[in-house]
Amino acid sequence: MTSEFRNIRPAYGFDEVSIVPGQITVNPDLVSTNLSIGNINISVPIIASAMDAVSSPSFMKCIDELGGLAVMNLEGVQSRYVDPTDALNRIVNAGPDDSTTVLQDVYSVPINENLLSDRIQEIKKLGINCVVSVTPLNAKKLSQIAVEAGADVIVVQSTVTTARHSSKSITGLVFDDLIKKLAVPVVVGNCVTYDAALELLETGISGLIVGVGPGAACTTREVTGVGVPQVTATIDCAAARDKYFKEYGRYVPIITDGGIRTGGDLCKAVVSGADAVMIGTPLVQSQEAPGKGYNWGMASPHPDLPRGVRVEVGITAPLKQILFGPTSMNNGTQNFVGALKTCMGMVGASNIKEMHSAELVLAPSIKTEGKFFQLR
Amino acid sequence: MTSEFRNIRPAYGFDEVSIVPGQITVNPDLVSTNLSIGNINISVPIIASAMDAVSSPSFMKCIDELGGLAVMNLEGVQSRYVDPTDALNRIVNAGPDDSTTVLQDVYSVPINENLLSDRIQEIKKLGINCVVSVTPLNAKKLSQIAVEAGADVIVVQSTVTTARHSSKSITGLVFDDLIKKLAVPVVVGNCVTYDAALELLETGISGLIVGVGPGAACTTREVTGVGVPQVTATIDCAAARDKYFKEYGRYVPIITDGGIRTGGDLCKAVVSGADAVMIGTPLVQSQEAPGKGYNWGMASPHPDLPRGVRVEVGITAPLKQILFGPTSMNNGTQNFVGALKTCMGMVGASNIKEMHSAELVLAPSIKTEGKFFQLR
Amino acid sequence: MTSEFRNIRPAYGFDEVSIVPGQITVNPDLVSTNLSIGNINISVPIIASAMDAVSSPSFMKCIDELGGLAVMNLEGVQSRYVDPTDALNRIVNAGPDDSTTVLQDVYSVPINENLLSDRIQEIKKLGINCVVSVTPLNAKKLSQIAVEAGADVIVVQSTVTTARHSSKSITGLVFDDLIKKLAVPVVVGNCVTYDAALELLETGISGLIVGVGPGAACTTREVTGVGVPQVTATIDCAAARDKYFKEYGRYVPIITDGGIRTGGDLCKAVVSGADAVMIGTPLVQSQEAPGKGYNWGMASPHPDLPRGVRVEVGITAPLKQILFGPTSMNNGTQNFVGALKTCMGMVGASNIKEMHSAELVLAPSIKTEGKFFQLR
Amino acid sequence: MTSEFRNIRPAYGFDEVSIVPGQITVNPDLVSTNLSIGNINISVPIIASAMDAVSSPSFMKCIDELGGLAVMNLEGVQSRYVDPTDALNRIVNAGPDDSTTVLQDVYSVPINENLLSDRIQEIKKLGINCVVSVTPLNAKKLSQIAVEAGADVIVVQSTVTTARHSSKSITGLVFDDLIKKLAVPVVVGNCVTYDAALELLETGISGLIVGVGPGAACTTREVTGVGVPQVTATIDCAAARDKYFKEYGRYVPIITDGGIRTGGDLCKAVVSGADAVMIGTPLVQSQEAPGKGYNWGMASPHPDLPRGVRVEVGITAPLKQILFGPTSMNNGTQNFVGALKTCMGMVGASNIKEMHSAELVLAPSIKTEGKFFQLR
Repeated sequence: MTSEFRNIRPAYGFDEVSIVPGQITVNPDLVSTNLSIGNINISVPIIASAMDAVSSPSFMKCIDELGGLAVMNLEGVQSRYVDPTDALNRIVNAGPDDSTTVLQDVYSVPINENLLSDRIQEIKKLGINCVVSVTPLNAKKLSQIAVEAGADVIVVQSTVTTARHSSKSITGLVFDDLIKKLAVPVVVGNCVTYDAALELLETGISGLIVGVGPGAACTTREVTGVGVPQVTATIDCAAARDKYFKEYGRYVPIITDGGIRTGGDLCKAVVSGADAVMIGTPLVQSQEAPGKGYNWGMASPHPDLPRGVRVEVGITAPLKQILFGPTSMNNGTQNFVGALKTCMGMVGASNIKEMHSAELVLAPSIKTEGKFFQLR
Repeated sequence: MTSEFRNIRPAYGFDEVSIVPGQITVNPDLVSTNLSIGNINISVPIIASAMDAVSSPSFMKCIDELGGLAVMNLEGVQSRYVDPTDALNRIVNAGPDDSTTVLQDVYSVPINENLLSDRIQEIKKLGINCVVSVTPLNAKKLSQIAVEAGADVIVVQSTVTTARHSSKSITGLVFDDLIKKLAVPVVVGNCVTYDAALELLETGISGLIVGVGPGAACTTREVTGVGVPQVTATIDCAAARDKYFKEYGRYVPIITDGGIRTGGDLCKAVVSGADAVMIGTPLVQSQEAPGKGYNWGMASPHPDLPRGVRVEVGITAPLKQILFGPTSMNNGTQNFVGALKTCMGMVGASNIKEMHSAELVLAPSIKTEGKFFQLR
Repeated sequence: MTSEFRNIRPAYGFDEVSIVPGQITVNPDLVSTNLSIGNINISVPIIASAMDAVSSPSFMKCIDELGGLAVMNLEGVQSRYVDPTDALNRIVNAGPDDSTTVLQDVYSVPINENLLSDRIQEIKKLGINCVVSVTPLNAKKLSQIAVEAGADVIVVQSTVTTARHSSKSITGLVFDDLIKKLAVPVVVGNCVTYDAALELLETGISGLIVGVGPGAACTTREVTGVGVPQVTATIDCAAARDKYFKEYGRYVPIITDGGIRTGGDLCKAVVSGADAVMIGTPLVQSQEAPGKGYNWGMASPHPDLPRGVRVEVGITAPLKQILFGPTSMNNGTQNFVGALKTCMGMVGASNIKEMHSAELVLAPSIKTEGKFFQLR
Repeated sequence: MTSEFRNIRPAYGFDEVSIVPGQITVNPDLVSTNLSIGNINISVPIIASAMDAVSSPSFMKCIDELGGLAVMNLEGVQSRYVDPTDALNRIVNAGPDDSTTVLQDVYSVPINENLLSDRIQEIKKLGINCVVSVTPLNAKKLSQIAVEAGADVIVVQSTVTTARHSSKSITGLVFDDLIKKLAVPVVVGNCVTYDAALELLETGISGLIVGVGPGAACTTREVTGVGVPQVTATIDCAAARDKYFKEYGRYVPIITDGGIRTGGDLCKAVVSGADAVMIGTPLVQSQEAPGKGYNWGMASPHPDLPRGVRVEVGITAPLKQILFGPTSMNNGTQNFVGALKTCMGMVGASNIKEMHSAELVLAPSIKTEGKFFQLR
């Protein structure tokens, strides 16, 4: 038998690595977690996912006041229903066996462009940053409407987004053109490889969202086989960011999206190179989230090939406690910012960028029956 | 202690790899999944296993109409019983503890060559492709009869088949001779290594079936220790196909057989180099399958050393829905073709051959208690 | 952080490898499984462990007739009790919580040298090979008595045995001397490394038993941290055997002992380089074994630091069926010889030595909830 | 896709390695396990953790008489409560759901410096070694008081301690200064990397405690992502110790702390390079421990970000039996010293330093449903 015919390089996820303490330590009270995305400055590098169970106008207000950011999905219930509460209730109250069917039905109501415009104005009236997301398919049309209605940042997001897309339509989405046309910064995702990231960065985007296949409410990997574990995806896209920065002098933040369940995961994403993280499930567990203890991905309602499922995650605490504690939970699901600052102290990093130089080791673990097992 | 005395190279299975998105994306509606095996053209690269729970004349008709293909086993109940339904019912109705005993008994009735001939004519009358399988032991005799009765393609399949076989009989099976003698294309399997694949290709076969030990209804690996995980087996045999094509200019499709349970597995097999897949369990779950929700391997009834077990897999949907959706299942067990096309879109492949150039990463996962764990 | 300070090489067990089919196949009916250990020739390379639950005079007779071999422990109940049945019954009937205490008590009765001598004569009267085992501590005294009573082969076995032992006594056991003094072949174990194996081979032994820490009824690894998985241990000791054969022209069989539960494990041991295997649990499951469905290791009754536990394994079939089938079990626990021959056929090996050239791949698997998972 | 952008080296834990037997064996009765830490000599290299569930004055007396050592935490209940029994009872009697809240409450009572001083004098009156621990934050103040009250050794311990710490206060803790000022040896921890260890050794410390993130009652890794498995951490810090010894001629013992549950783990820590181990849970299982069958880490009561949980571990035996046996337990949780000596015998090591030269192999295992699985 001959040698291998193909190189299959290893890719690592959060459960497989851990962070090595530094050679100096820093008082956690002294560290900074500030971040700029386009023209928006946040003090907490945590962005609420563009999922209907996570981001609503009132939730956006709430996380904005705490220093973070939320992204509203322009193709979700907020743009389909005058009163989204009814739609959300239908999903939340569906039985376990028909939840996907209900999701498919709720999202079969078409997007209403006037409603979408009203929703953005409603957010702007709250006096907060208005970041909204669209899919590449609808980006040209909806993003124009959104900017006119007052959106501050446009996020163009789908499971996999590349700078080049081969399609039937004569004029597919060209990010360079979109960015020139829109007066606001554009953040694009999701992406997981160095080459695709570099090409997207070169179109002039203001932020890159990283992650395909790792989310808790996402079954892309199970259904299509496609996915790259988040630590490797983040490392690779961060390398593209650094390369781009070195060449063009513009620093574009990397936002790791998907699979982050604990403070430990958040810290590992940042050490891997993320400037911020996008999280869903941990925030749905807040009292303020519209999902009322349930979460579902935006690919879950797909009429033909749903990739995801409605997951019951429960409500555990007010958002402020989830972000900043204090907490009596010791499993990492509360006080995300405290965990990040404590970690920064242990690795000796004064700010997010210094965290990118901390060391990771491969130390896979599995928790079963309440115990962690080291695996390799 | 000295260094290692033996090189043991790693071999990967479906659960250990995932597919990396491409640098361009393609609209899934634009991709082609066509394939030729010998003189047969199919639009769906999914072949139903030569197992009695999967392929019967009526099932063959059904999958043929949907663009796929099924292989009938000439050594199964269809060639042993005038009315195979009774035999199938006995297996299906056996209790969990005596199912292997019942299998051994059902398959102790001898093969009836006239019946075999009739069955092939019955299939031909349905106006569809007639692909049938025999074991190497019976290949010389039965394949001749089958071709005379109208079979379009002969599959010679056993757990492990090689171009050379050492046996008591003076004249063992020689594939070159068999292929010359038969007027129809011959597909051979199963095989898992580069060298064995190359040697089989050089005999003039029209298709190579890949897979030893990974099937859900197969315990070859447990009983005999023999088996190679499917991703590595497919990569190696595909390398032999490419080598053979480069040298002789004839492209022989690789058919990965065994262990494919989801759309994700199917996509990984194709990215590994498969031109088509052979699946059993997912198709047995169709309403049209003769197994009525049960599956068993053709080595399960072995009188002395059964390798496999009757597995209850349940009936979930019509075959059309399993192949094309739409579906409310989000675990990858329905809409195999939709999953394949979606994956092709994400990696930027317009056809099956372009899928062979997509990248795989090593990203082992285990699903327990409903969650995926990354393992290494 | 600097690079690694220590090389930790990987060691593999049965569950981590699988056997690759060969480039030719052989009819299983044509293969030979013969083996010579010293002056003893066996046709089945399976040796029953020197454990009280496995080997008694009547069991030795039974396996001898089937072509295999059993080793009687000269320090077990057979040498401590005139009627060992009572002692065995006490162990078998102990409750789960006090089984170790009962074991410690049963083995606190001293060894009776006259009884030991009688027992050997009892075996010889059965007209079979009489292979008996002693620990290094008692080897000088007991082996002399055993040979005088008629033993054909002496096995000197402990958890770890080396050619050199540092001890308080002025004259420790020196294998060269023992071998010269005894008129019969001496088999020694257990050993797991190349260097230790080579040194033992150079003392003139006639067989080497391989395995520390992998047995099902052994917790040496849990209690002391010591153990080497069997595939690597066998490969390394087999390399020492081949080196010794090359240098001195004497072929000394390697006997892999511990952790073999299925036909697949047996085949993997042989492909790793074993000439024979020593098994306990699979044979205790025979109707003829003295353990009556229970098994325990010889380190389990240790008064201060027991390493092992009495395990209930059940009785499944007559010994003949376990060794040769036919069987309706498809999990590899019956028809060990059939499995070995089938495997030899698939890798194209006509005899045990040709099996040593078959290829292994790293393909770790775990079986949970009835399914195998590929892990890495 | 390009190659990797970051080196992530593997780190190993106890469950992933095993110890290889040596080329000679030694009679376990002949081995020495002696150790010196500063001016203290112990015959058993086992140190009880500075945790309130483990070390109280009476427990310290008990382990001292058996040849080991215990460290009292100067920031725990012993320095906060005149009668610590009440406080301990509150923790022990708390329900499973409010145990963290109760811990947070119990530890909100301030440290009383007079009480602390009295407690040390109480220990000295018992005629035993008095080793006490403080955190870096309180080290300057409390260690001075402790030494004046009679403490023999000061341990400065926190989750991660480095020679350099960046803090708001103008004069942070400088170990060189502290060591010069105090008349007694100083032991520092915890540390896991070569560079940080070397820098700490150069400050003049008398012992280095190794371990971040692996303890059973610690969730640092889950909450903050920080942690290095113990085998790698010990190997790296031991390399720093050897480097420092080579350069300065002073041998500073390495104490591996955290994650040791069995004799096997203890042996692996020593083979990895530890001179002693610090253990909590196994000792809490003794009748003499103040935790009454419960254990909790000193980071568990953190008011904002608790990292750990109260764990019920049960009471299994007197301390003497846990350390020296005899035992009927065969899972490695009793007779730690017997296990160590048996292991030393099998690897052929006469003393602790010789154990550092034994070989480790990578042989990951997981125990589920009572069985060990080899994983990789």
